[in-house]
Amino acid sequence: MQLQLALDLVNIEEAKEVVKEVEQHIDIVEIGTPVVINEGLRAVKEIKEAFPSLQVLADLKIMDAGAYEVMKASEAGADIITVLGATDDATIKGAVDEARKQGNKILVDMINVQDIEKRAKEVDQLGVDFICVHTGYDLQAEGENSFAQLQIIKNVVKNAKTAVAGGIKLDTLSEVVNADPDLVIVGGGITGVEDKSGVAAQMRNMING
Amino acid sequence: MQLQLALDLVNIEEAKEVVKEVEQHIDIVEIGTPVVINEGLRAVKEIKEAFPSLQVLADLKIMDAGAYEVMKASEAGADIITVLGATDDATIKGAVDEARKQGNKILVDMINVQDIEKRAKEVDQLGVDFICVHTGYDLQAEGENSFAQLQIIKNVVKNAKTAVAGGIKLDTLSEVVNADPDLVIVGGGITGVEDKSGVAAQMRNMING
Repeated sequence: MQLQLALDLVNIEEAKEVVKEVEQHIDIVEIGTPVVINEGLRAVKEIKEAFPSLQVLADLKIMDAGAYEVMKASEAGADIITVLGATDDATIKGAVDEARKQGNKILVDMINVQDIEKRAKEVDQLGVDFICVHTGYDLQAEGENSFAQLQIIKNVVKNAKTAVAGGIKLDTLSEVVNADPDLVIVGGGITGVEDKSGVAAQMRNMING
Repeated sequence: MQLQLALDLVNIEEAKEVVKEVEQHIDIVEIGTPVVINEGLRAVKEIKEAFPSLQVLADLKIMDAGAYEVMKASEAGADIITVLGATDDATIKGAVDEARKQGNKILVDMINVQDIEKRAKEVDQLGVDFICVHTGYDLQAEGENSFAQLQIIKNVVKNAKTAVAGGIKLDTLSEVVNADPDLVIVGGGITGVEDKSGVAAQMRNMING
């Protein structure tokens, strides 16, 4: 099981400071969609250059132009690029084919997909590397979470690795770990606490079992 | 009927050159998703500063954190911001509320929405300014277009303005104009031709009817 730190509400300099605090405890650092929108792919490039031993995920949430966007994210040094489960199969296939050429990976974000079970089965057949259930900020605010969705995809996904994101904190991590995803994505559960390094270390221990 | 120029496969300097050629013929210039991903919101800011008399649309394709993203795009000077029809109602409401505060507008992009008629009715009730049918690059490559979808939303949308995007060229524009959308979005149909100004002028004439 791997641990990914999601950086959403920071600029590049703040991102570097946070990663420096926790880098020994995490496998992947995510440049979140808000950071990409604010700063562009420069954010991916700068974090990859500053932390070459970490994998960097570019959270582009691709909805169209799959091959082109994966190519551009690859140029910036991204190891993993996100595509929306809500997009069409042609976009996902284009992204997967380009990722194969570039030697990096595709994570499909199932945020706001209506029929998670059906779509996870379809996406799993397209050769993606990760399928991620994800309750976004706006639905977290309405009290939703992704834990039930994780069980659903664990039952139907045969090829891809499974991932879970959305509001995971230290006190909810054990429930997530029990469901045995391949990748756990934590944002505010680390970035929003005082002792980031200590919390990340505890999370790492729980994940290592 | 308004005409929007979509800029997708350019950097900021190339964008400025294209807009300079056609600015007298267009109402809105769109900073496309690939430009936002590559350059960040700086692209919106620079184009708005260079062409203050044009409206600037920031094609963020928001899937989450609606209020936050609209706030950031507003800081950069965006007049119109896009949200995905495929997202949840909470994200759209957050985006609309923030746009009301900021004095700008929300365009909902219906790209890859499965049931266009049902979702257009729902989205129309959330107070958005534009509802746009859109066949993306990856499905255009498979021969699809948005003209039938435009008829569907024209029949059910009561409050928002209607828009259409995706592969519109000079030789298909008359079919689009006959369907009477409020906004026509053209990308490669202008940026991909030699005589950009001439084609944009012809399109403007057809739209003015």
